[in-house]
Amino acid sequence: MTSRFRHAALVGKYQAPGSRSVISEVAAFLQAQGLEVSLDRETGLNTGLTEPALLSIDEIGERCDLVVVVGGDGTMLAVARQLARHGLPLVGVNQGRLGFITDIPLTDLHQTLAPMIAGDYEEEQRSLLAGRITRGSAATTGHTDTIHEGFAVNDVVITRGATAGMVELRVQVQDQFVANFRADGLIIASPTGSTAYALSAGGPILHPGISGWVMAPIAPHSLSNRPIVLPDAGEVIVEIAAGRDASVNFDHQSLASLQIGDRIHVRRSEHRVRFLHPRGWSYYATLRRKLHWNEGVVV
Amino acid sequence: MTSRFRHAALVGKYQAPGSRSVISEVAAFLQAQGLEVSLDRETGLNTGLTEPALLSIDEIGERCDLVVVVGGDGTMLAVARQLARHGLPLVGVNQGRLGFITDIPLTDLHQTLAPMIAGDYEEEQRSLLAGRITRGSAATTGHTDTIHEGFAVNDVVITRGATAGMVELRVQVQDQFVANFRADGLIIASPTGSTAYALSAGGPILHPGISGWVMAPIAPHSLSNRPIVLPDAGEVIVEIAAGRDASVNFDHQSLASLQIGDRIHVRRSEHRVRFLHPRGWSYYATLRRKLHWNEGVVV
Amino acid sequence: MTSRFRHAALVGKYQAPGSRSVISEVAAFLQAQGLEVSLDRETGLNTGLTEPALLSIDEIGERCDLVVVVGGDGTMLAVARQLARHGLPLVGVNQGRLGFITDIPLTDLHQTLAPMIAGDYEEEQRSLLAGRITRGSAATTGHTDTIHEGFAVNDVVITRGATAGMVELRVQVQDQFVANFRADGLIIASPTGSTAYALSAGGPILHPGISGWVMAPIAPHSLSNRPIVLPDAGEVIVEIAAGRDASVNFDHQSLASLQIGDRIHVRRSEHRVRFLHPRGWSYYATLRRKLHWNEGVVV
Amino acid sequence: MTSRFRHAALVGKYQAPGSRSVISEVAAFLQAQGLEVSLDRETGLNTGLTEPALLSIDEIGERCDLVVVVGGDGTMLAVARQLARHGLPLVGVNQGRLGFITDIPLTDLHQTLAPMIAGDYEEEQRSLLAGRITRGSAATTGHTDTIHEGFAVNDVVITRGATAGMVELRVQVQDQFVANFRADGLIIASPTGSTAYALSAGGPILHPGISGWVMAPIAPHSLSNRPIVLPDAGEVIVEIAAGRDASVNFDHQSLASLQIGDRIHVRRSEHRVRFLHPRGWSYYATLRRKLHWNEGVVV
Repeated sequence: MTSRFRHAALVGKYQAPGSRSVISEVAAFLQAQGLEVSLDRETGLNTGLTEPALLSIDEIGERCDLVVVVGGDGTMLAVARQLARHGLPLVGVNQGRLGFITDIPLTDLHQTLAPMIAGDYEEEQRSLLAGRITRGSAATTGHTDTIHEGFAVNDVVITRGATAGMVELRVQVQDQFVANFRADGLIIASPTGSTAYALSAGGPILHPGISGWVMAPIAPHSLSNRPIVLPDAGEVIVEIAAGRDASVNFDHQSLASLQIGDRIHVRRSEHRVRFLHPRGWSYYATLRRKLHWNEGVVV
Repeated sequence: MTSRFRHAALVGKYQAPGSRSVISEVAAFLQAQGLEVSLDRETGLNTGLTEPALLSIDEIGERCDLVVVVGGDGTMLAVARQLARHGLPLVGVNQGRLGFITDIPLTDLHQTLAPMIAGDYEEEQRSLLAGRITRGSAATTGHTDTIHEGFAVNDVVITRGATAGMVELRVQVQDQFVANFRADGLIIASPTGSTAYALSAGGPILHPGISGWVMAPIAPHSLSNRPIVLPDAGEVIVEIAAGRDASVNFDHQSLASLQIGDRIHVRRSEHRVRFLHPRGWSYYATLRRKLHWNEGVVV
Repeated sequence: MTSRFRHAALVGKYQAPGSRSVISEVAAFLQAQGLEVSLDRETGLNTGLTEPALLSIDEIGERCDLVVVVGGDGTMLAVARQLARHGLPLVGVNQGRLGFITDIPLTDLHQTLAPMIAGDYEEEQRSLLAGRITRGSAATTGHTDTIHEGFAVNDVVITRGATAGMVELRVQVQDQFVANFRADGLIIASPTGSTAYALSAGGPILHPGISGWVMAPIAPHSLSNRPIVLPDAGEVIVEIAAGRDASVNFDHQSLASLQIGDRIHVRRSEHRVRFLHPRGWSYYATLRRKLHWNEGVVV
Repeated sequence: MTSRFRHAALVGKYQAPGSRSVISEVAAFLQAQGLEVSLDRETGLNTGLTEPALLSIDEIGERCDLVVVVGGDGTMLAVARQLARHGLPLVGVNQGRLGFITDIPLTDLHQTLAPMIAGDYEEEQRSLLAGRITRGSAATTGHTDTIHEGFAVNDVVITRGATAGMVELRVQVQDQFVANFRADGLIIASPTGSTAYALSAGGPILHPGISGWVMAPIAPHSLSNRPIVLPDAGEVIVEIAAGRDASVNFDHQSLASLQIGDRIHVRRSEHRVRFLHPRGWSYYATLRRKLHWNEGVVV
């Protein structure tokens, strides 16, 4: 069987102790599979590794056909976001407890990763949120500025200032007014993000096959402000209607100090994230494992 | 402006006091709009009205091009289910507090219903659940029997027997095992049904544009058995794995005494329900009104 | 060190496979600790054991000063309920996964149970619910009948009939009207029961030191019908206001076919349940273990 | 009937438009009832009113025997906190929608407030939280500093920094370790506060007769970190175990920039808040009104 991939980029979470040797080990494994291997420049600089050859993220996007991420789900999300424009497939190798999307144990490379490199895998595409913050009103100031733009794999989250009582958010979907939400904040999560922060805030699990996202208020003032699942075809606009020091984040990368009247625009990106899983991978098996289903909790 | 509709069927909730005169009033109104009007046979028999001419549900499906329902959401659901195969558009006239889908006040026929009859309306299509119960196993008995079939506009609900402790349900989606749920029951709700029983059980609101349904366990044994939103493209199979006297219902029409091993199959029907709303109708406005959004509850 | 206890009764869950030999083993262990040991008559009849000497539950209540229960939390609850009037302390020996109240592993009798028999233990008292069902009205019929009475360690639960849509319950606390709840049912749980069914229905955990109980509606019609914690000093009266085939149960022992107008009266029993735990036992440690706290679930 | 009260202090929410004339009106009403009336100094300074005679909060505490608060629940809470040490009874006059604790409509002074001044009322005592923040460890630095102290009528809330991912809190109750909670924050609420922020975070309602408080995590990482009701006899200690820029507030009065290792100590104050209500007042009637019980939400 010939390898379907030719040139893998290796990206690692370098803060973890021992990550230098782990990354070297994975690099050697990939080379032994007949792949050309390059190392993410930042991973190299931070671990002190100078080989395999270092490439910037953009160079990886242009030259590689596979990205191997060593770390947890958080690392995987960060890499997916940075490489969103390039359409490269990602696989996640995990040193510790397996994640929702990093599902290859470091101890299992030969058995699990080797066949994937050879082309035997399941590919799963996940949607990506594209966010944009605008300030100013065409009506009153003659112009609107985009003050920030970014992608999110999991979620876009708007929150109140730490010492402010509450934030009031005016939500519009596809030019239709939805409601004013008074809450600690509001989460707009993709199916991928539905099992992360949104779940803690009371949101449902969204199967990745759902063309939608969940909008879940955090500790809403009104008990009937329940999470709502919206089609991802339309743009969601959230305007800061009241509340000091509100902030927004994209996958927990924050932009602080929003002002009254600032608007967060969220739409589905034209890009998609590609995750590769071992043959036989099952979304539901991952849910069962991560959420401890079938292990009783209550008497 | 010429009328887009020609022949309306009138169906009413005849149990309500005064419904005879209300139905006569609506019939007269529709005739005054230039429509041919027929009366649902059962509505006629129960109110004692003999005109307009009585038609059976099937005759309505064949001859009419509009159905006017007088009653609440429950009546509307029943009519929608009975007429599912015919693709007729429905409008709902409500005597009391407006519902999620019956949104024309009886006091407002001239202003709201008249333009709709003339063709000025918004049409909204809702998905329909098709359920089927099978018993027996091809493996052990050589055959499988379908013991019940039906449609549901809102939800298919499987519940434990009243004096049984709990039901255990084995769930499969598109031939993939999801989990065994131990709970009081399980709700599979369409977007239309997401604001009904499923909401009480902790489910999210599903916008009607979502091609999915929510599967929400009722009082699940495990706290991590959260509601999950599934694509409606695949079949859900729920098997009674344990529990006495389980039952299933389609929009609250019950089939009792399920046995261990019985399977409930739920898929999206090829039919869709067509609701007509007044021009300017907004799904979000309905949510705000019905869920008392923007009316604070908490201090 | 002299033994503080003299005469232990042994009660076992005889349905479990191998329970005959397990019960013999525990009996021998208790006798080796210098205790007189008697066997619960029903346990004896069901396992075929004829020694130690068989005693009825009432005889146990009169002659023994300790009850050793072999089984899970469910068995422990049943024994506690039967012996409620006698004030005997209970210890729970568990063959499988430890429960909330059965916390001595069968494999650990020498190290854990022996010192307890010798008087080195922590005693914890739990409140008990006393329930009573009445039918008929003094006003209209001249008399009221008590049709059922019972105790519950965990909870008193009122539920709708399996094929009935909903039950409406009129709740009164200490002669004050609380509300009419429309729901699948209503749970009144002691602190002991707060980690059982009530938790599945969205109730809080109640520390056993709280002189109160939680009243939690099951899938309530109104989203603001949240669980409420009430002082246990007053009587709660729940009247069936509407709904077919409602039933009530005490720790899952059911009384079916309640009628409209039937009233369930719940008050704190004058009796208390006494559980003995190993020295160093901690309520919070039990919570952490049973609820998997400090094990992350979400990404 | 002779008046039971002699000297009322009047405190008002002076930010509201028209509050100057409203306060004058209430002052005149109280004087007409034969009371000596004093005006809270700050209320006077802010409204420009110079009579009735101005008194500081401490002077009010020493000289008056009744406090009449004009405003909403928030104003009432602030006054209750400031006067906590003095044990004065409070009544709340509300201009707008009635609150949980301010239940005398401004339009209804003669009928409702007059009899209360004459001694015909229901008194209700509510517990008060006493909070203290300490920094430093006796073990490592030789001393511990109390850096803040305060009272809360509703709740003590610890939250993450606005741009920090999460806070980790180590909770101890009466010298027993409870758990490490990873969440957006943690609320410790009195029965009074249980219907405020804690309710939004998923907590239960606590009847004021419960000698306990609810500890509710906000958006907890683990789904089994459910709200827990604790006896108020013991001290709760919450230590910041991880997380940048955590803050704590007492009834929404914030103290920002907590450091890792800082401890928040919460115990029941020896003081109690005294609220006066009109004769016939019912806690449950207030719940029904504020939470819109008995008004259906769901289809």
